[in-house]
Amino acid sequence: MSKIAVLGTGTVGDTIGSKLVELGHEVMMGSRTAGNEKALAFVAKHNGKAGAGTFAEAAAFGEMIFNCTKGVSSVEVLQSAGAENINGKILIDVANPLDFSKGMPPSLSFVNTHSLGEEIQNTFPEVKVVKALNTMWCGIMVHPAMIGGGDHHTFISGNDAGAKETVKGLLQTFGWNEKNIIDLGDITSARGTEMYLPLWLRIFGATQSGAFNIKIVQ
Amino acid sequence: MSKIAVLGTGTVGDTIGSKLVELGHEVMMGSRTAGNEKALAFVAKHNGKAGAGTFAEAAAFGEMIFNCTKGVSSVEVLQSAGAENINGKILIDVANPLDFSKGMPPSLSFVNTHSLGEEIQNTFPEVKVVKALNTMWCGIMVHPAMIGGGDHHTFISGNDAGAKETVKGLLQTFGWNEKNIIDLGDITSARGTEMYLPLWLRIFGATQSGAFNIKIVQ
Repeated sequence: MSKIAVLGTGTVGDTIGSKLVELGHEVMMGSRTAGNEKALAFVAKHNGKAGAGTFAEAAAFGEMIFNCTKGVSSVEVLQSAGAENINGKILIDVANPLDFSKGMPPSLSFVNTHSLGEEIQNTFPEVKVVKALNTMWCGIMVHPAMIGGGDHHTFISGNDAGAKETVKGLLQTFGWNEKNIIDLGDITSARGTEMYLPLWLRIFGATQSGAFNIKIVQ
Repeated sequence: MSKIAVLGTGTVGDTIGSKLVELGHEVMMGSRTAGNEKALAFVAKHNGKAGAGTFAEAAAFGEMIFNCTKGVSSVEVLQSAGAENINGKILIDVANPLDFSKGMPPSLSFVNTHSLGEEIQNTFPEVKVVKALNTMWCGIMVHPAMIGGGDHHTFISGNDAGAKETVKGLLQTFGWNEKNIIDLGDITSARGTEMYLPLWLRIFGATQSGAFNIKIVQ
């Protein structure tokens, strides 16, 4: 079991954090201010089996870090967490750079020759960034068997082979079958999974349900 | 059976054109110059059951038009085909705006708040543009049963409900089951299917095969 920081108090952070607690990990939820209401509710829900703190406190606590913050502010959040608290660690980047400021559906802040995953990696070269799980609703991230008997796919991208192996192992404890975890390559391949989001949003619109994922049929 | 123009002499045009001939349609392949070698080879292959001409000749011939040209030059091609030859007709846009000029993997010429499908629709307001089939290798477009018993998905986008129904019917003659054709909405939803291409390219890179498609698992 590991000490894991979950940065972000939204539904994604709460869902992933709860799963990690359920799996027996020590979890600290990080937020902008120490007294964040959602973070305190998360702690209360887990009867003291989880903690809460500032982004910096959570990052310092975690041996591994989940970035579950809004993609447009993730780099700023990580800067406030402090490079000294995240360097050398695995950072699982679940966020998407969705920009709602130009109306619906949202645009992506990074496209084509750039991605949020790369922006984080470039900003913090000593962090082992692994992009993962960002192509689905969070309920499915931690419970893939919820749909299709779990036989659908998730992707990982990152520059550090060892870090990707660790994340693959963690995803398997979430219920993912190893054969359903596709390693797309280095962190530049995060462009692919992030740019899938506009299609995800359109499928969500057409089917009126976010409880879906894609399966690669060969 | 219909008279159908296939604009573009690449693998996509050849594959779709051949399927249309096989289904008994009258097909004319359009290219920049009347004597295009690939177009003449296409005609020869089909023993005179298909024709070839300029973009304008093919467009004038077709009651329905497939755009199988390279996405970065599609608008220019359609302009050379002539608005008078395409207005009022259904144009099935299979192309993706892949820009290889900035290196590999290619970028998209249109992203976020724009797409090739919309660019064509905006340039030719009287054409019934239906974006379709652009999320897979052409072999699967016309033979979905090649993988997974045909149980995977394709998408359509367009402003004209009647045109989308017609295209849905045509796709069913290609072998697509009606329930596997997802109507994503108006032509702005082409942003979703076009922006999926970077992920398609990364999956292709990881699996070393283009013979795949995605299935929406719910």
